[in-house]
Amino acid sequence: MKKLIKSRFVIPMKGKVLEDAGVLVDGQKIEGVYSCPPPDGLEYDELIDLGNSILIPGFVNAHTHSAMVLFRGLADDLPLMEWLQNHIWPMENKFVDETFIRIGVELALVEMIRSGTVAFADMYFYQEVAAEVIRKAGLRAVLGEAVIDFPTPRFKTPDDALKFTREFIQSFKDDELITPTVAPHAPYSCSKELLHKSKALADEFGGLPVLIHVAETQDNVNDIMSRYGKRPVEYLDSIGFLDSNIVAAHMVWLSEKEIEIFVEKGGGMVHNPSSNLKLASGIAPVHRYIKAGMRVSLGTDGAASNNDLDMVNEMHIASMIQKVKEMDPTAMPAWDAFHIATQGGADVIGLGDKIGTIEAGKFADMVAFDIDAPHLTPLFNPISHLVYAAKSSDIHFVMVNGRILMQDRELKTLDEERAIARANELAEKIRMSDSGN
Amino acid sequence: MKKLIKSRFVIPMKGKVLEDAGVLVDGQKIEGVYSCPPPDGLEYDELIDLGNSILIPGFVNAHTHSAMVLFRGLADDLPLMEWLQNHIWPMENKFVDETFIRIGVELALVEMIRSGTVAFADMYFYQEVAAEVIRKAGLRAVLGEAVIDFPTPRFKTPDDALKFTREFIQSFKDDELITPTVAPHAPYSCSKELLHKSKALADEFGGLPVLIHVAETQDNVNDIMSRYGKRPVEYLDSIGFLDSNIVAAHMVWLSEKEIEIFVEKGGGMVHNPSSNLKLASGIAPVHRYIKAGMRVSLGTDGAASNNDLDMVNEMHIASMIQKVKEMDPTAMPAWDAFHIATQGGADVIGLGDKIGTIEAGKFADMVAFDIDAPHLTPLFNPISHLVYAAKSSDIHFVMVNGRILMQDRELKTLDEERAIARANELAEKIRMSDSGN
Repeated sequence: MKKLIKSRFVIPMKGKVLEDAGVLVDGQKIEGVYSCPPPDGLEYDELIDLGNSILIPGFVNAHTHSAMVLFRGLADDLPLMEWLQNHIWPMENKFVDETFIRIGVELALVEMIRSGTVAFADMYFYQEVAAEVIRKAGLRAVLGEAVIDFPTPRFKTPDDALKFTREFIQSFKDDELITPTVAPHAPYSCSKELLHKSKALADEFGGLPVLIHVAETQDNVNDIMSRYGKRPVEYLDSIGFLDSNIVAAHMVWLSEKEIEIFVEKGGGMVHNPSSNLKLASGIAPVHRYIKAGMRVSLGTDGAASNNDLDMVNEMHIASMIQKVKEMDPTAMPAWDAFHIATQGGADVIGLGDKIGTIEAGKFADMVAFDIDAPHLTPLFNPISHLVYAAKSSDIHFVMVNGRILMQDRELKTLDEERAIARANELAEKIRMSDSGN
Repeated sequence: MKKLIKSRFVIPMKGKVLEDAGVLVDGQKIEGVYSCPPPDGLEYDELIDLGNSILIPGFVNAHTHSAMVLFRGLADDLPLMEWLQNHIWPMENKFVDETFIRIGVELALVEMIRSGTVAFADMYFYQEVAAEVIRKAGLRAVLGEAVIDFPTPRFKTPDDALKFTREFIQSFKDDELITPTVAPHAPYSCSKELLHKSKALADEFGGLPVLIHVAETQDNVNDIMSRYGKRPVEYLDSIGFLDSNIVAAHMVWLSEKEIEIFVEKGGGMVHNPSSNLKLASGIAPVHRYIKAGMRVSLGTDGAASNNDLDMVNEMHIASMIQKVKEMDPTAMPAWDAFHIATQGGADVIGLGDKIGTIEAGKFADMVAFDIDAPHLTPLFNPISHLVYAAKSSDIHFVMVNGRILMQDRELKTLDEERAIARANELAEKIRMSDSGN
């Protein structure tokens, strides 16, 4: 079954923006990209004309905790430790179970599809439950059960969590859409031994991406300094943890030397600007990271600290704050912001050979923006509009693995009304409980 | 003709958020606000049930150059002077005429209504043409023709511009929706004499709001320092310019002493976070301004440096960047960001007694967000959602002066398709000309 997808603009990532172009999809993969009219004799079974649209590789949300959408807006404008200790952790311990994950992930997926995300990396709990929901909805995900030195809502010990992780990897390792992996929480919350075991497990299965939080706040850095006499990236390097399969979220506070080390080891970092702003963690100098040759991607973090999973918004904010951080309007130009949100993300979470560009041989993961909108008029430069003016509500078409997940803004694989209703029902219990705090 | 407008939540600004409430509108004004069910015997001709919505006073965009939407995305990621000298100024001189203003303002109004703006303050050219378009569309506006020491696309001398301004004020001074006023461009671009004449003209007509740019960049400050030996606000104070009718846009770089002076003189400031980020001007410390008792409002600036006129986005960014500027997650809480975008704006641009709250006696300028959306689920706190999670595309109902401008997302006073088509036609000429640079 071959589909020819036509669009006014196509952004293949490699090479120029194409105008009036078509993408031929055969099953799950892209067979070719053509300027219109397509070559004589090109055969296809179905024509999908997206009209006045910009077709891009979908967004890759490289760091999130998707089920946390159920805590969206529960507590804002609070100091980090008050927020965690008095609101988020008590609620997680009370509410996070299989049902919570099922309902939370489903709601998150509705939001992600609507805002053009095709793949994401997620660190949370009950990831085999999440995997089932995601597989049905049809997105790609890299999933790691949080492994941490203290008890989680699910496991009493990190060894229990690691044991589960091994089984989880074995069950899903050949899955088309799910990449099961290991997620040691952070250098301050995992012992050296736990970090080693986690990395070894990922490497045993061919170098799976290792999801971890690094240097999110100045406190994090001070904590590691006082324990190990080294800054976080130096410390991780000294224990042999750094490698090209490391997916380090946040990375707000790195020294020049740490930037060099991280680049040399070939790891990937995930920038989470909204969460870092909202919790006043700081602004990661990603413009410098990119210039230094670091592999950079973009994530929303969980909706409890963002408060959404909107990569269009995230890309916009990422570009705007770098300019003021560097006091240079040429810093983080539109193309860089767009790149870290798409191809850069695919690369960092280990999917770079499968998705992230629109070219023959890649899987057909694509998203279209409707540009027939007042806020996108006039149009001088499609990339500028995507980063500086577009909204996620302009997205009307989402395809993952050759399967249409949204067309004409209608979801094809999820029941949106049901997802919202279930989430509201569960939230009612959270509300009652939180107000009793 | 009385309308009862029901909504799940109503945010009157004064007092608590109301749940399941109704607003009775009689002609152009609000007659009362009721908890539902309304009192027995309450009479009305029409019931408008907004359902699962949040009803707020509309947004007030306190500083913009609306017709500049036609330059949206024309040039980005450039140093300020290169952007102005090689792109914006040549294009303005070549293209800004009555037709440009008519087409540009109409497109801007479509975008503003869709994103919930009910009133705005605008400094640009051919403001009598803008006034006509705005009056027909039904928004409120405070309009000032740019007055400046060098030739504008319209006037050769500042005296010509001031002469026009006097006539413009006389023609529109009794208008229901338009407040005509004076707009001396900035202390660095207007002589002391021109600033005096401008202020005197505004005062002659009862203290009209005076629109001006102040301390937008460090260069601005250095320029005034080198010319007058004082920082901009000190300088304006020393020449007797500061007053409660001053509407000072940007105000990024103020000393502690200047904050004190400005607060003491009772002026209002307009924060333009997106423009200040994108042009790398800096982050105005508005959290400190609010604490110091300054009258603070919010604006988008022109779409050439933003790149949109979306107050929902602006409010979101305003809150997020203050937290990181202060390295304090409690800085600029959701309520403050919401306040400067609505009631604060109405106050600063001189409409505080007419609009900005939902209460009996005020004009009926109101906007509703549809909260039946995945990214607004669950809902623990309506104010948090408006600032941290809502999008302008959630807005489905806009009323100004008791007149419905948008209902069920359908514009009632403007032809959106025509506005977009006309703008695209004109943009084609701009594109040809810019590419010839």
